[in-house]
Amino acid sequence: MLLSKINEPHDLKKYSVEQLTPLASEIRQFLIEKLSVTGGHLASNLGVVELTIALHYCYNSPVDKFIFDVGHQAYVHKILTGRMDKFDTLRKHNGMCGFVKRAESEHDVWEAGHSSTSLSAAMGMAIARDLKGENNKVVAVIGDGALTGGMAFEALNHIGHEQRNLMVILNDNEMSIAPNVGAMHNYLTKIRSDKNYLRAKDEVEQLLKKIPAIGGKIAKTAERVKDSLKYLMVSGVLFEELGFKYLGPVDGHDLPGLIDSFNQANNVNGPVLVHVLTTKGKGYTPAEEDSHKWHGISPYKIESGQVLKAVGNPMYTEVFGKTLIELAEQDERIVAVTPAMPGGSGLVKFAERFPDRMIDVGIAEQHAATMCAAMAMEGMKPVYAVYSTFMQRAYDQIVHDICRHNANVMFAIDRAGFVGADGETHHGVFDIAFMRHIPNIVLMMPKDENELRHMMKTALEYNEGPIAYRYPRINVPGVPLDEVLTPIPIGSWVKVREGEGFTIIAVGPMVQVAEAAADILKREGVSASVINARFLKPLDNEMLLKLAQTGNKIVVLEEASQAGSLGSSVLEFYAEQGISGLDISLLGIPDRFIEHGSIKEQLEEVGLTAESVVHEIQKFRSEHQLTYGKKANPF
Amino acid sequence: MLLSKINEPHDLKKYSVEQLTPLASEIRQFLIEKLSVTGGHLASNLGVVELTIALHYCYNSPVDKFIFDVGHQAYVHKILTGRMDKFDTLRKHNGMCGFVKRAESEHDVWEAGHSSTSLSAAMGMAIARDLKGENNKVVAVIGDGALTGGMAFEALNHIGHEQRNLMVILNDNEMSIAPNVGAMHNYLTKIRSDKNYLRAKDEVEQLLKKIPAIGGKIAKTAERVKDSLKYLMVSGVLFEELGFKYLGPVDGHDLPGLIDSFNQANNVNGPVLVHVLTTKGKGYTPAEEDSHKWHGISPYKIESGQVLKAVGNPMYTEVFGKTLIELAEQDERIVAVTPAMPGGSGLVKFAERFPDRMIDVGIAEQHAATMCAAMAMEGMKPVYAVYSTFMQRAYDQIVHDICRHNANVMFAIDRAGFVGADGETHHGVFDIAFMRHIPNIVLMMPKDENELRHMMKTALEYNEGPIAYRYPRINVPGVPLDEVLTPIPIGSWVKVREGEGFTIIAVGPMVQVAEAAADILKREGVSASVINARFLKPLDNEMLLKLAQTGNKIVVLEEASQAGSLGSSVLEFYAEQGISGLDISLLGIPDRFIEHGSIKEQLEEVGLTAESVVHEIQKFRSEHQLTYGKKANPF
Repeated sequence: MLLSKINEPHDLKKYSVEQLTPLASEIRQFLIEKLSVTGGHLASNLGVVELTIALHYCYNSPVDKFIFDVGHQAYVHKILTGRMDKFDTLRKHNGMCGFVKRAESEHDVWEAGHSSTSLSAAMGMAIARDLKGENNKVVAVIGDGALTGGMAFEALNHIGHEQRNLMVILNDNEMSIAPNVGAMHNYLTKIRSDKNYLRAKDEVEQLLKKIPAIGGKIAKTAERVKDSLKYLMVSGVLFEELGFKYLGPVDGHDLPGLIDSFNQANNVNGPVLVHVLTTKGKGYTPAEEDSHKWHGISPYKIESGQVLKAVGNPMYTEVFGKTLIELAEQDERIVAVTPAMPGGSGLVKFAERFPDRMIDVGIAEQHAATMCAAMAMEGMKPVYAVYSTFMQRAYDQIVHDICRHNANVMFAIDRAGFVGADGETHHGVFDIAFMRHIPNIVLMMPKDENELRHMMKTALEYNEGPIAYRYPRINVPGVPLDEVLTPIPIGSWVKVREGEGFTIIAVGPMVQVAEAAADILKREGVSASVINARFLKPLDNEMLLKLAQTGNKIVVLEEASQAGSLGSSVLEFYAEQGISGLDISLLGIPDRFIEHGSIKEQLEEVGLTAESVVHEIQKFRSEHQLTYGKKANPF
Repeated sequence: MLLSKINEPHDLKKYSVEQLTPLASEIRQFLIEKLSVTGGHLASNLGVVELTIALHYCYNSPVDKFIFDVGHQAYVHKILTGRMDKFDTLRKHNGMCGFVKRAESEHDVWEAGHSSTSLSAAMGMAIARDLKGENNKVVAVIGDGALTGGMAFEALNHIGHEQRNLMVILNDNEMSIAPNVGAMHNYLTKIRSDKNYLRAKDEVEQLLKKIPAIGGKIAKTAERVKDSLKYLMVSGVLFEELGFKYLGPVDGHDLPGLIDSFNQANNVNGPVLVHVLTTKGKGYTPAEEDSHKWHGISPYKIESGQVLKAVGNPMYTEVFGKTLIELAEQDERIVAVTPAMPGGSGLVKFAERFPDRMIDVGIAEQHAATMCAAMAMEGMKPVYAVYSTFMQRAYDQIVHDICRHNANVMFAIDRAGFVGADGETHHGVFDIAFMRHIPNIVLMMPKDENELRHMMKTALEYNEGPIAYRYPRINVPGVPLDEVLTPIPIGSWVKVREGEGFTIIAVGPMVQVAEAAADILKREGVSASVINARFLKPLDNEMLLKLAQTGNKIVVLEEASQAGSLGSSVLEFYAEQGISGLDISLLGIPDRFIEHGSIKEQLEEVGLTAESVVHEIQKFRSEHQLTYGKKANPF
């Protein structure tokens, strides 16, 4: 076994180039076996086995810096840097992270999760290196999908201008997660596939040899033209125009070829882009045949490729996708917009049913948001379907283009709350805090799938500005569905359980947690009401005023950043009303990043459980209250 | 006078092409005269006089949609659409907006303020048009500076792919606000200036004519090569590769030429980009000679070009710039980063002093943030100098790349609070609300220039993660400056005035407002203390606990979104501590967008004045308090 002797990248260099090909096979076998048990990002990692081996063979990590865009394709890098024994704990609570992780290894120099950051990171490291007078290499590995993100272009533009030494490996597998869209993709495809284009290059060279024979005045011109032609007929002219030396395309599964190219790139002064062609899922037939499905995969049977899935209720995502089709059948103004996540957002069937009304913009959250504003202003009803965490990219466009214009954009915010194994880069826990201070927006979250469907109808009928519904990355509770969808009055909450003395205000799946807490409390002889705070903005002022009159102890329970979210807005409301003296506890996510694990483990870690709610209320009952501020009024 | 007969775009079409040139002169004269009194964006508008006339001459607004990127270059458009008589009120409270404004005219179809949104807006309008089966034209006018913003590239990539009818006018004046940087800029310069490049095009055509004479096997090849060459030798190959038909470059001050080009573009199927070369400040010598200074200008004397500036204390921006030089003299790890605002951010002298340590990335707020994270991780001390409103573009990068990595990035957040004449798109009133829920960050705001300088030292010495200081777009109060800069203990507030019964917690320039209120109250026989809440995160827990013990009525005063900012975090703190019963009023900016005017008018509009604070406190004294929640505890 060649692999078993590798504990650090240096060990790799003891092998000859010829030995690296069998090593690649061993790594593939290792990945296929390990991930069949744990699940994980199989297809993308199978695609970069040779690329990663060649990197470590040609460069000297950690002195030379490898920056993996997104970072889910770093499993091979983890294997080569001494973490083979950690793969049994991949993406598990306290186990090895599915992304690059600085705390795991000195070879992990840049973390990500969101795409398109690698070029900016590489530029930052190159600037620091130059200022410090050092001379290490900086290498960014970026997929063709990630290259469509606007910030990647911002970085290309800057790197091409400054001309520092920096290497970009374009890992072109013709996919982001879904098949790629965009003019850049078309351009890469042309380079990749157009044999005529490559042939033309040869033919031009042949032709050029003839030209010097032409005499007279034209001879000098011919020389000049020759120069121009050589320049222009090179593949990758677009990158050359932006200031990069372009090398490629290179077969990303041919180790000697890759090593040659990297060594060649190593001798280039200034920024160089190596265009590497890879196949997602390479070496495992099921993954090669459907790399989309095998991007992030659950445990599977190796021989058949059969995925072992738990049977259960559908995900919220699926209910959203189905309901959107129902609504779109009745209202032709509905247009669905996704930034490269048609599958993840449950829109595949919508796209089949309404191909003209499904817009996949690529990894381009900013463009998508602003485009939705313009569509809305022209009478459409765009639905911007986006993961909460990726919507962070569009904050300014939500403020400046959607809310300031008060445009009738609907947001379908998926993955709201914890997301489990993807961990801290992917949680959707900030969107309430970063959206509720924006004027004009309405923010909703349903407690179950039936309410989600009504909310979607609510959003469609609402014509006074932007409106959002957010839903978690979990299975729905499985409640009966109403046949007729009815708009919900804006800002109305529902008391889902009557009680006395205590009131739990909860939102989304936390309503079920609150009800479970109320059940436990009831058994302990304590009565608590539960309110479903289905509107995060505006609040139900009337219900809050009535609640204040009861003098109840209030607990606000939300799977969101405790700072700035629902609890915070309840406190603000009472302060604005001049109502003081209420005892209000906030149960939300504390002020730190929560690492990967299962959603259940993450909720337990931060105390968003029925037991915590019960504890909070029982503690209040048994303890003496602080009396600060309850002293006699100074007047 | 040709201009006086134009009340709407249709009137323009009564003129011959020959009459348009004198009309352009009249418009220039009008702008130079009007702006000499009101101030405004002179240089950019002088640059687009002919371009805007040609647009309205060739197209049919408002059926055809004109989308002006940023929108400060729409003065000529305003003149041609019936708003000549409004120029005396330009950028004034209740007067004409300095940007495109939908409420002003049906010809204003898209508002902006932030750059690089026009292509996304155009795409949204084109999609809506196609879905509705209409056939109007959609035209985006974008500067070469705005083109470097990542979202513009996201849009180019999408537009080039979908191939809908849509016209982009690239207004290339070699400037954003400062001279442009970036590879795209270099590329445009090459097209613009390289006569060899253009000559080569002619020469190739000449050469191609000779080639058919070559006989035999090579003849067919020659034909193929000819096709390739024609394609490749066209200027603007980069745009052509991205799926656009490229036309140009066109002289942007030659009306017949522009009209020809626009008519030609009109016949193109699919997306077309017309590359128009303009001169900022065209026709007014002082503005042509220093278009940077004349981008946004105060009132001036027409004949001399002398700018009439009020004498006063320096701006916070200048104090920042000077102090940064002082600190950088002593600490070579400091690197200043700006997204295309070296002048506006007070960094011109820094750039002269430390050219290697000043990085201007172009309009690229996202790239800048992530690049700073990487520099910090490599031991540098980057200062990301950015306007609060533009930092909105980097929200995700602040969360995902800076704060999640806990990187030692310093933020110098300029234009925090109201900005005056630029109005609702430019206020820096959301940054506390969108940053304080992000784990790991420290947020400060000084009450005067002396404190700003200490905060800059504090940030430099702090090595535990990201730290930000924010300051307003106003003159400093003019306090004495300490010679030695000393780090301020993180999270420490200062009681700047002792009093009893009432406490005003204020931040930044609101500390002076609070002191003024305390003065008035004192005269009315009421005693109030004032706290300078110079840390917005973390809060001064100890001081807040002491304050709670006093039972004082608390007023939190901040020039920031009332939702989610300082007041909100004070409420959260007390709730988390289980402290209830305090009477806390929040005085912040209400939940709506505040339009242009002077900063003073904006503060008055939202009640952020000493008088409002006094009123709030006197109202509390005279009124009966609501007693909700103060009833007997249910136990």
